[in-house]
Amino acid sequence: MNFHTRKWVKPEDLNPNGTLFGGSLLKWVDEEAAIYAIVQLGNQRVVTKFISEINFVSSARQSDIIELGITATEFGRTSITLRCEVRNKITRKSLLTIDRIVFVNLGEDGLPAPHGKTQITYIQDQFKDDAASS
Amino acid sequence: MNFHTRKWVKPEDLNPNGTLFGGSLLKWVDEEAAIYAIVQLGNQRVVTKFISEINFVSSARQSDIIELGITATEFGRTSITLRCEVRNKITRKSLLTIDRIVFVNLGEDGLPAPHGKTQITYIQDQFKDDAASS
Amino acid sequence: MNFHTRKWVKPEDLNPNGTLFGGSLLKWVDEEAAIYAIVQLGNQRVVTKFISEINFVSSARQSDIIELGITATEFGRTSITLRCEVRNKITRKSLLTIDRIVFVNLGEDGLPAPHGKTQITYIQDQFKDDAASS
Amino acid sequence: MNFHTRKWVKPEDLNPNGTLFGGSLLKWVDEEAAIYAIVQLGNQRVVTKFISEINFVSSARQSDIIELGITATEFGRTSITLRCEVRNKITRKSLLTIDRIVFVNLGEDGLPAPHGKTQITYIQDQFKDDAASS
Amino acid sequence: MNFHTRKWVKPEDLNPNGTLFGGSLLKWVDEEAAIYAIVQLGNQRVVTKFISEINFVSSARQSDIIELGITATEFGRTSITLRCEVRNKITRKSLLTIDRIVFVNLGEDGLPAPHGKTQITYIQDQFKDDAASS
Amino acid sequence: MNFHTRKWVKPEDLNPNGTLFGGSLLKWVDEEAAIYAIVQLGNQRVVTKFISEINFVSSARQSDIIELGITATEFGRTSITLRCEVRNKITRKSLLTIDRIVFVNLGEDGLPAPHGKTQITYIQDQFKDDAASS
Repeated sequence: MNFHTRKWVKPEDLNPNGTLFGGSLLKWVDEEAAIYAIVQLGNQRVVTKFISEINFVSSARQSDIIELGITATEFGRTSITLRCEVRNKITRKSLLTIDRIVFVNLGEDGLPAPHGKTQITYIQDQFKDDAASS
Repeated sequence: MNFHTRKWVKPEDLNPNGTLFGGSLLKWVDEEAAIYAIVQLGNQRVVTKFISEINFVSSARQSDIIELGITATEFGRTSITLRCEVRNKITRKSLLTIDRIVFVNLGEDGLPAPHGKTQITYIQDQFKDDAASS
Repeated sequence: MNFHTRKWVKPEDLNPNGTLFGGSLLKWVDEEAAIYAIVQLGNQRVVTKFISEINFVSSARQSDIIELGITATEFGRTSITLRCEVRNKITRKSLLTIDRIVFVNLGEDGLPAPHGKTQITYIQDQFKDDAASS
Repeated sequence: MNFHTRKWVKPEDLNPNGTLFGGSLLKWVDEEAAIYAIVQLGNQRVVTKFISEINFVSSARQSDIIELGITATEFGRTSITLRCEVRNKITRKSLLTIDRIVFVNLGEDGLPAPHGKTQITYIQDQFKDDAASS
Repeated sequence: MNFHTRKWVKPEDLNPNGTLFGGSLLKWVDEEAAIYAIVQLGNQRVVTKFISEINFVSSARQSDIIELGITATEFGRTSITLRCEVRNKITRKSLLTIDRIVFVNLGEDGLPAPHGKTQITYIQDQFKDDAASS
Repeated sequence: MNFHTRKWVKPEDLNPNGTLFGGSLLKWVDEEAAIYAIVQLGNQRVVTKFISEINFVSSARQSDIIELGITATEFGRTSITLRCEVRNKITRKSLLTIDRIVFVNLGEDGLPAPHGKTQITYIQDQFKDDAASS
């Protein structure tokens, strides 16, 4: 699983108890998953259809850096299923995992449409110069 | 189930496709559920621990009014389980339902602590002058 | 008066002195009042026209839960007048009251239009299963 | 009356009807008035106590530039009273006027405290190099 | 240079270290500069094209009041160049200066278009009743 | 250069002309650069000190996906210099490049402190299971 997007937990992301607000975290997860789905399906018209159980394993505090990882686990005819993990970038401690986030691919009429993809698309040149630094 | 908090879907709540962003909706749900848990447990130190499957049944558009309903379904020793439904205030069409959102009651040390509650607290005077208007 | 929408006072809602920012509170009031007007008039095209004197009776602090109450007090030909109270959900202490918030009903041309309503609309089924829990 | 702070009306400031959300406007007014009170009283601990009637004379649309004007009209022992006007920067058309916004000066104990001011403070050097350009 | 727009540094503007987030400051600068360009060019279709070196001289803390100053330094055929300084409103201590922010004037086709301006426009009546108070 | 964080351009990120607001983009850049500096220096107390010239090469529109790339180019005694590029994730078209963003490493006293780093830290295990998918 690749971890791409990072977040720096700021005062505006906290709940009144001073830890990362669960709702803010879910908002970040949904955006990152949508981005992944759009890139894989090559279509901006995707909608979140289903999210499986969410276990909030640990929380984050102000100034923590967290990173979001997504990978595709299944390609349906008009859908794509993703797996997600969020973890602390420094400690690698998991904040949450979600086994299945399902997006549906829409046509221009707004109805589910076949996307024609069956596997993860490799974007080769993205990694040519990736020397594994942070 | 009582539906309390309402939201007016504004441009800032939309995804780039012009419908209500799923992440925004989840943020609203988490806040409303936290408020319900705090009121029932009489303790502001609660954290979201678990959210069961989420089905996004239908979406909302700009200027729609939606309302969030929460009810307690189970009182554990240190936890409370809630059920949630979000629907369009005017058409009553469901946007999503979540069977179980589990909050844990924390003590001052930040560890799970018994809350001593076994059933929904009735806040009588809240409804004395409630004549059922919108 | 019914109290529907609740807010959990978060860091992002505070003024630099650490109490609830008056401007944030007014933004919440205006949205809740607009929602009430839209539901009563059955028309999404409403605009705030007038707000009477606002007394900031007490403030709120981070992690307080507050609730907003609105009721219609007068139906004009093209307008509706609302009364508003905001209070602490737990202590019932009033934060502010506003005697009159006037919304104007607009037609498709953007001009004031008669709304044909003369009294509060009762939404019966909303309360069928309302067992008075918080 | 001086008009200082300007705002560029962006999508995030709109209500669902596509005009400037009244609540956003009130939030801007409250911040600008607080800044004015802080500068005049030389004390950051001020709270909004009262706002007189607000007439929403006209609205603004996306990409409009508006400016906020504040002036002090009365110095009480522990309070200051301001007058406010918001207008379109280009057309000079008024959006709203508020005759009285009252702030209370607080001491370190959070209670009202005399501020010792009796008139508007002139900040001379601010205007030395002010050649009246926009 | 005129200093117009003021900001009251609130919790939502802070970085996790508790000082003003540089990114928030740059967002404010870009909006204020765009407003200045629009007013000078009499055209809302302007885009930021270039920003010269930015020196973050000092920072700000929660509840500080800062003010943004902009002045035009050069009128090109289709562009305008601005100079910017941000400072603490009370102490006059500089937060940052930017020598050149270049905006391009766009026609209705979205392409660079001559703006026909050669010098700063004086908006006389704006200052008729300006008695130099804060 | 690694491109990590992605953004989905939403209505709340647009300027009134309907393209990505430059100020929003700079806010994203500053956060991503701060995260990179924190990870490399192993210290959360870092502040933006300097940003070199910014060329806004092209813009983005609603629903575009953009990605932010950062790499370290120089390690000073108490500072780190980064290079940044932002590009469209799909078309690879560059939005902006910044040659030098300088962060200063602070000690607990808030003063510049040596960080002891001289080169990019490789975080090996981060890439063990990285199969190069998007």
